This record gives sequence, structure tokens and C-alpha cells, in this order.
Amino acid sequence: MLNDPLDGLDERGVIEQKVRRHRDGAMEATVDQVGQEWPVALVFNGISHAVMMCTPRELEAFAVGFAISEGIVERGSDIRDIEVAFHRDGVAMPYAQVELTIVQQAFVALKDRRRALAGRTGCGVCGIESIDLLDLAPEQVPNTGFLERLSPDAIARAAHELPSHQSLTRMTGGLHAAAWCDAEGAISLAFEDVGRHNALDKLIGRLVLDRVDATNGFVFLSSRASYELVRKAARVGIPMVATISAPSSLAIAIARQAGIRLVSFCRETSYVEYGGGA
Amino acid sequence: MLNDPLDGLDERGVIEQKVRRHRDGAMEATVDQVGQEWPVALVFNGISHAVMMCTPRELEAFAVGFAISEGIVERGSDIRDIEVAFHRDGVAMPYAQVELTIVQQAFVALKDRRRALAGRTGCGVCGIESIDLLDLAPEQVPNTGFLERLSPDAIARAAHELPSHQSLTRMTGGLHAAAWCDAEGAISLAFEDVGRHNALDKLIGRLVLDRVDATNGFVFLSSRASYELVRKAARVGIPMVATISAPSSLAIAIARQAGIRLVSFCRETSYVEYGGGA
Repeated sequence: MLNDPLDGLDERGVIEQKVRRHRDGAMEATVDQVGQEWPVALVFNGISHAVMMCTPRELEAFAVGFAISEGIVERGSDIRDIEVAFHRDGVAMPYAQVELTIVQQAFVALKDRRRALAGRTGCGVCGIESIDLLDLAPEQVPNTGFLERLSPDAIARAAHELPSHQSLTRMTGGLHAAAWCDAEGAISLAFEDVGRHNALDKLIGRLVLDRVDATNGFVFLSSRASYELVRKAARVGIPMVATISAPSSLAIAIARQAGIRLVSFCRETSYVEYGGGA
Repeated sequence: MLNDPLDGLDERGVIEQKVRRHRDGAMEATVDQVGQEWPVALVFNGISHAVMMCTPRELEAFAVGFAISEGIVERGSDIRDIEVAFHRDGVAMPYAQVELTIVQQAFVALKDRRRALAGRTGCGVCGIESIDLLDLAPEQVPNTGFLERLSPDAIARAAHELPSHQSLTRMTGGLHAAAWCDAEGAISLAFEDVGRHNALDKLIGRLVLDRVDATNGFVFLSSRASYELVRKAARVGIPMVATISAPSSLAIAIARQAGIRLVSFCRETSYVEYGGGA
């Protein structure tokens, strides 16, 4: 399939919808901004692997981040080529497709994994179908001394800066953000998505594509902290995960195992530390 | 494997964790309540199908709701037996397993589906691996006149009542709730979970187990509205989905297709109507 040049362009991330707004018994017909949620198919060396529901922006970074955070490839150089295509016309529902070409070794491993797991696998933990296949032993993140260099004001600064990076959330009231912060809490990168896992995958992918050292910064998430988010951070050696909302029990357990410092309920004046880290 | 009698008992849904609370530069060692997130394996007629990350309460309702909302069975009577086992001791990480016995016809269909989808399927849309397999044509919900019977104050009342049903959220600051409301907005059932999809599955499962007419009420969710939540509601004919936070573009599209009224940003004094419904 040949793509026209437009196919390379990101969507805006929001669409307009006619709505009826009810307030104190009165009704007003108006237009609302809504976060785009598209099916995004991830295809590795010609084989469909997964369909994620995703905001159709930064899909190259998303696909790279997904491939790495899910362990399909070990490093960015294992990905030889990426093509993003947007299918808007003549389809029942717009969708995007990302075709990745990965090195033979990684593709063989992926095919082996697919073969080992015969049959449909389900939902939840990225397609894992039985407890035996669940990976509850995360990588230990390397201690590069980042946590010792971390400014005491870093969390406050990141919490202060994040809203200015959430332009889609301001418009729609409902996307998640993942931001990359240095030891002072300054935000250098931020991504928004209808899915919090996608936002983190976009961030991880961008770190990899730009060869940013993931062990020398922390991630700040607008969401809660769940198992999968901490697991993805561990995969690339991120030493600290900070979230605005609450962590789950398994997020805490995995963070402690991986040696990731987990802090939640992060505000400008307060946060709660759940252990992990040096 | 024989289960001891304790295995039948739900977990509390929260655990205690030692934390360090930082506020205005001061630090206090204290104990925090955290929402339980456990791997929950769903096994159909002896075959592992999916592992979900779930709060380990009401797992019977969860499994029934998942089986129905994911189209594995069509009705509650297709499920012959359910056994829930909690594995707490001698395991690296506690987990639960739900063994369902489903009628032969549904099991054959499930095996066929697994066989057709050879190999590992991914993540995202409940294990769908390619766009072709994505089901973007929801069931049309039957028009039973519920929306005409709906009180103008129903949303306000549900929004007012929901917090009193969120005991785990009060303790932890971070679970999602799904509640079942009548035409007046009175809440008769509510479930909390670390995952919003799980909370809805628990609610759907309870409706099915108690033979409640799902076409004669609405669901009120503490979360945003995404594709999957609306899709699950359509599967059992729920005529209205109300959420506290924002909807995604695909949630709106699917609701309109299914004939479900979608209302979001629901508060005691206001809400926004995104179409769908009679």
C-alpha cells in the first residue's frame, strides 16, 4: 500500500464534537473538544502483533517505546525502520498502522514467543495468558547516583511545570501526561495520550530515539502508578517514578524489587515516598 | 490442587504500607493504605485465557462480567461453575485464579477463536492483534423506554450518592468505581477496583448473577469513558453510560453506533451529553 504524503502527518490529538451541556437545569448546545482515541496497529516485520487504543500523535516514538518497554527489542538500534500510516478515508473508523522492521534476532525471538504461546492470549498484562508467563521479576535499575544528585525541590518543580505541558488536557479535560525531568525537576519532554501506558511508551520511545540517558532523570506521570507503568520504567533503567495520583500495591512491590524510587500524590508542597531506590 | 477454606475469602482490597510523607520540607514516617493490585488468572474449562491486574474482591462477579462483556459466553447460564482460589503463601507474589466451566458450545467457539489467532496476541484491545479483528460494530442496545423514564435529576443524584459507595477510594485515594443506578439515579450496586474496566466487569457480572435487567438502569463510572467501557456496556444492553471524567472520541462514536446515551463530566449540578440513545 502506497501512502500519500499526508499519511505521515500526525493528527491534532483532539476533535470537535457537538454536545449538549446541562447546568443547573438549563441546556446549551455547544461544541466540545474531545481527545482522539484511535486503534493503532503495531506490525513487526510484516506480522501484526498488537492493536492499542492510542491518541494518534507521536506514533513513531510510541512504537519504539512499546517495542522496548515490552521487551520486543533490547535497544533502539534493533529497530531498522519505522513507517507510520494514517487511514482516514474509506474506512469504517480511522486507524493508524505502524510498521517496524526489527533485526532478525529480535524477530526470531518474537516469533518463538508467539509460537510458544499458542492460541489467543487475553488482556490485561499485555497479552499474558497464564500466571506462569507473568514477569514479576523486573530488571534491577543501575545505580548511577541520580537519586543522590536529585534536588529536594525537584518533585515540587515538576508538579509546578507539568500543567504547562498538558495542552491537550486543557482542551479536553481528559488525557494523561508523561514527562521527563532532570535532577532539578525541570521538564524537558512531555507526551499526552488517552492511555497512561501509551503516554509513558511515547516518552520512553523519544528518550531512545534521541539517545537520552534514561538512568539520569525521572518520569513524572499525571496518573496513578500501576504495575505496568513501573515495569516499563524498569525496562529502561529509569531510577524514579513520580505520579500525581495513588500507587497500587503491585506497583510498590515491583518498584522496590527493581530499585526504583516510587513517589506518589506529588504536589508542589507534598508527596509520599513508597520506598525503592538507593 | 485442594484449597483450604480461607481460599474462598476475598482480600480486603487494601493493604498497609510504611511510607514517608513529605510536606513543606518536613518528613514523617507513617502508614498508608494502598489499593491491592493482584494478577488474576482467568481459566476456562482448564485452559488459561487471560491474566488481569485486578483488586482481589468480588472475583466471581468479575469473572462472569469479563466472560460476558468480552463475548466469551452469551449469557450467565452458559457458565456452569466458578471456583475462585487465592494463592498467598509460598508464591513470589500473591495471585488469584478463577476457574470457569462454560458450556461446550461456548468453549468450542473460544477454542476456535484461539486457533484462528495463532500465536501471541498483544495488548490493548483485549488481546486483539490486528485491525481486521477489531470489533468496531457494537450491538445495538434495545430501546426499552428507559431513557424516557429517566428522571431529570438522576445524574445529579448518582453523582451525589457515589462517594458513599467508594470506601476503598476513601482509604487509598486511588481506585475506580462502577455503580448501577435506577431511573431516579439511586445506586443499588457499586464496585471498586484498581482498574476501571475491572470495576465495570464486576458490576456487569453481578447484574448477570442476580438476574438484574441491564436494559433498565444506567452505569455511573468514576473514570473517563473509553472505547472499551462503552463496548462492554453495549454487550449487555445498558442504555446509558455516565462518567465523572472526559470521554474519548471513540467512546462517543461507539456509543452513538450502539444507541447508548453517553454523558460525561457528571457533577451534582452539571453534565455534558455526547449523543447516542433515543
